[in-house]
Amino acid sequence: MRLAYFGDVVGKPGRAAVLDHVPDLRRRLSLDFVVVNAENAAGGFGLTEAIAGDFFNAGADCLTLGDHAWDQREAMTYIEREPRLLRPLNYPQAANAPGKGAHVFVLPDGRRVGVVQLQGTVFMKQQLENAFQHADLALDSMPLGMAVDALIVDMHCEATSEKMAMGHYCDGRASLVVGSHTHVPTADLMILENGTAYQTDAGMCGDYDSVIGMKKENSITRFATQLPGERYAPALGEGTLCGVYVETDDRTGLATRIEPVRLGGRLSACVPEVD
Amino acid sequence: MRLAYFGDVVGKPGRAAVLDHVPDLRRRLSLDFVVVNAENAAGGFGLTEAIAGDFFNAGADCLTLGDHAWDQREAMTYIEREPRLLRPLNYPQAANAPGKGAHVFVLPDGRRVGVVQLQGTVFMKQQLENAFQHADLALDSMPLGMAVDALIVDMHCEATSEKMAMGHYCDGRASLVVGSHTHVPTADLMILENGTAYQTDAGMCGDYDSVIGMKKENSITRFATQLPGERYAPALGEGTLCGVYVETDDRTGLATRIEPVRLGGRLSACVPEVD
Amino acid sequence: MRLAYFGDVVGKPGRAAVLDHVPDLRRRLSLDFVVVNAENAAGGFGLTEAIAGDFFNAGADCLTLGDHAWDQREAMTYIEREPRLLRPLNYPQAANAPGKGAHVFVLPDGRRVGVVQLQGTVFMKQQLENAFQHADLALDSMPLGMAVDALIVDMHCEATSEKMAMGHYCDGRASLVVGSHTHVPTADLMILENGTAYQTDAGMCGDYDSVIGMKKENSITRFATQLPGERYAPALGEGTLCGVYVETDDRTGLATRIEPVRLGGRLSACVPEVD
Amino acid sequence: MRLAYFGDVVGKPGRAAVLDHVPDLRRRLSLDFVVVNAENAAGGFGLTEAIAGDFFNAGADCLTLGDHAWDQREAMTYIEREPRLLRPLNYPQAANAPGKGAHVFVLPDGRRVGVVQLQGTVFMKQQLENAFQHADLALDSMPLGMAVDALIVDMHCEATSEKMAMGHYCDGRASLVVGSHTHVPTADLMILENGTAYQTDAGMCGDYDSVIGMKKENSITRFATQLPGERYAPALGEGTLCGVYVETDDRTGLATRIEPVRLGGRLSACVPEVD
Ligand SMILES: [Fe+2]
Ligand SMILES: [Fe+2]
Ligand SMILES: [Fe+2]
Ligand SMILES: [Fe+2]
Ligand SMILES: [Fe+2]
Ligand SMILES: [Fe+2]
Ligand SMILES: [Fe+2]
Ligand SMILES: [Fe+2]
Repeated sequence: MRLAYFGDVVGKPGRAAVLDHVPDLRRRLSLDFVVVNAENAAGGFGLTEAIAGDFFNAGADCLTLGDHAWDQREAMTYIEREPRLLRPLNYPQAANAPGKGAHVFVLPDGRRVGVVQLQGTVFMKQQLENAFQHADLALDSMPLGMAVDALIVDMHCEATSEKMAMGHYCDGRASLVVGSHTHVPTADLMILENGTAYQTDAGMCGDYDSVIGMKKENSITRFATQLPGERYAPALGEGTLCGVYVETDDRTGLATRIEPVRLGGRLSACVPEVD
Repeated sequence: MRLAYFGDVVGKPGRAAVLDHVPDLRRRLSLDFVVVNAENAAGGFGLTEAIAGDFFNAGADCLTLGDHAWDQREAMTYIEREPRLLRPLNYPQAANAPGKGAHVFVLPDGRRVGVVQLQGTVFMKQQLENAFQHADLALDSMPLGMAVDALIVDMHCEATSEKMAMGHYCDGRASLVVGSHTHVPTADLMILENGTAYQTDAGMCGDYDSVIGMKKENSITRFATQLPGERYAPALGEGTLCGVYVETDDRTGLATRIEPVRLGGRLSACVPEVD
Repeated sequence: MRLAYFGDVVGKPGRAAVLDHVPDLRRRLSLDFVVVNAENAAGGFGLTEAIAGDFFNAGADCLTLGDHAWDQREAMTYIEREPRLLRPLNYPQAANAPGKGAHVFVLPDGRRVGVVQLQGTVFMKQQLENAFQHADLALDSMPLGMAVDALIVDMHCEATSEKMAMGHYCDGRASLVVGSHTHVPTADLMILENGTAYQTDAGMCGDYDSVIGMKKENSITRFATQLPGERYAPALGEGTLCGVYVETDDRTGLATRIEPVRLGGRLSACVPEVD
Repeated sequence: MRLAYFGDVVGKPGRAAVLDHVPDLRRRLSLDFVVVNAENAAGGFGLTEAIAGDFFNAGADCLTLGDHAWDQREAMTYIEREPRLLRPLNYPQAANAPGKGAHVFVLPDGRRVGVVQLQGTVFMKQQLENAFQHADLALDSMPLGMAVDALIVDMHCEATSEKMAMGHYCDGRASLVVGSHTHVPTADLMILENGTAYQTDAGMCGDYDSVIGMKKENSITRFATQLPGERYAPALGEGTLCGVYVETDDRTGLATRIEPVRLGGRLSACVPEVD
């Protein structure tokens, strides 16, 4: 199977990168399944139904969120109607958090793709439940190569250690473990020893002449002065589509190839060559 | 000028990566100046004089540290005798921290290279002084293209936002701003709009079949159980040399090229092609 | 019923305060049940079996721990043999953490006292599971006035907000919600609107001419310099026994009175007057 | 001299507590100087000029702030005109933060009182400069018993360790070191060995049937669910005036007495007896 995951879409330049490039890439790379992290799509903060609709139209099969899930409150009701939108799985059970954190998608040809989003706990503003324990529950409920033909885990968190640990923890049980949240792509794409493709962070879709997608002047001033400044707003230069491409073996669901995908804006372009 | 910076060396596999590859790379790439972040060189925790000596012999011109600077207490006296070893600049002045955080190196041909290490404050275990204010002091004291022919800033911290903000803050005043500490290389190498080369994190030199260079089992168990486990120890598979290569214009000190350098171990190899 | 809870015992002066005063107080106040938080009893770090034995001999019925539970590794096996020793309840289930986080004690006269320890998640070094959800489970399993005649919740955490929220959350379902961990007694003892006695932090048993029970010079130097210093060690002046006294109504298990208990050392003495 | 300090005023019930009780207490206790921490006076978030005026009219001589200093942006300009309003001293110098962090007040009888506000760095949302180094600068600039007849340090921070360390650090150089920010009064009032009066936290002026002065329902829901809820708003029950009273020796400026002051609302009342 051919999968792509695109990292946190930040504001208008990030949305434009998705809308401009994903339809074409989907064809060129014969993608079977596309995930987009949309937690910062609405002006840097959360997701609206209208924006989600645009992403689905552009070829996204699944949208994930993160710590900014509910910045736009409408997402709390929208997610209840839209099974293709996922939030972190590991909310406390008693929270009855809206929506779901895992879903099995059935492709037109009958193949099934599982997607799970987990949120880490190190340095994160919400304190969700243990992501490793929840990974177990989710992965056990959709065994790779049996219940699902491919399985993507979006590990949303700050610390590289927590992401790498999750990668190894799911190794052999997922097709891809990919991190999100830091808004910078990492260059450590690899297939782990038991066959899971891994990247610490997919990076953001947005303007890289910025501070994590937001206007750099505001951010610099806050760091330098520790005073409140203007509201954060997305930087408006050309966005880069930024994500990862993975091929899996349909017999096992494990990965056979992982490559970066970057297109447009300030980062050097990479598009996998495929037949 | 041709500069290279190699990220946090973790334990024996990281040291081997430096000792095995840097002498040869130094020749092949005609490197004028090499910086190695050595804060995790001694079993993952700090630096000893003996290890530092090995790095200097292998072709390092300057070693930097970070939040693990003093894990080996001998570094606190060694650094007083060794001007080529730098710790974060922005300790409180009253701390009289041992050693220095900035230094101007004079090359055999008379050219001068400034190096500054700063430690960020977001999510870091020490609370050093404002890194942006200290960046100003340091950069003003060694104006690029005048007092120094090249200037390297090692921004040691966790948050990608703090690193990107520092990159832009120094843009036009440094040849290179490169992050360290997260132990994962980022794929956002670029030349910022005023001519400073930038990478959010250079990555570590160490075994990438690990959790940030340390054995993965211990780390996974701690995350999954929140119980103390065995002591952290470096993973012992083949290490990857991981860093960045920068060319500067000798008239301005600004960057004309930035490329990743990765050799050995689990990451895909990249070595810049040079004449 | 007459209950007492004494906060984090720090090192030798803290232990001496418990051993010197608790036997006498137990008689003078006709205490039915005594809880001691022992997470810092062994040189400031954790608890040994020998020290626990001393506390039980001096009149403690139950010992609780906290984030320092396993600083002395022997506690991990000792706790399996000793049901009177409790650690935070809310470890991830999959952790199979040693020991228990809640227990019902049967008094010689047949009355039953439930004790629960929870650890908060704000600013804490471990990331345990949601304490509120676990509070529900625990309180539901031992309904006050039915399964137990009194119920004590030790809320071990840093943030005053998290403790106050837990107090109100348990209000009417516990006899006492008392905080630990900050090592400073608070002066907000009150009976909440539904009958639960509450104090944000019981304070420590230890030398108050210190920094949270530890030698002040080391601590000041670390704060002022951000450099590592000498190992932390308990301050060795006379310790203060520091805790809280609660009377409950045996028909409901709710509190009718809450008073501070402080004896010895640097804090002004308070001992409740009882008939 | 007779000094009083009242902790973080939260919303309307906190303001009412100040306005209702301070004028009378000022007379009854013959107070020479009154400080009020006003960082949460405006609906829990910051301070307006109008509210500040009310506090000055009610008998406050000096207002201090904290991490919420600029929640109401008008405070950034108001503080420039009002030398009796102080913000944390230890902003980075380059920040040119509005207002001042230390001031010497001259009483009608010519005696001088210095006030300094510092903000700690542990667990705080801004990362200000080293508070200990800034304490030195401030205390050296107004030597007690020489430049000033009394000196009050407001240490605004979360961690009890950081506050206690600051108390000892200033011991003998200040009349009073008192903490703020946690909104719960501590019961550790003492005179340190070199004559400085000390309390870890003065507590808040506000409704204690709350979570740190704010409505408890919202807060509990957020802790229990980790979902965003309604906006935080002050609890509206009767507020408690909460603070500390200190007597100093006019020859040395050191403390001779320290007592709690609590009046109204849910906490047990304490008013010092004076001649
Ligand atoms: Fe995020
Ligand atoms: Fe994001
Ligand atoms: Fe580091
Ligand atoms: Fe490191
Ligand atoms: Fe603790
Ligand atoms: Fe403790
Ligand atoms: Fe505050
Ligand atoms: Fe406050």
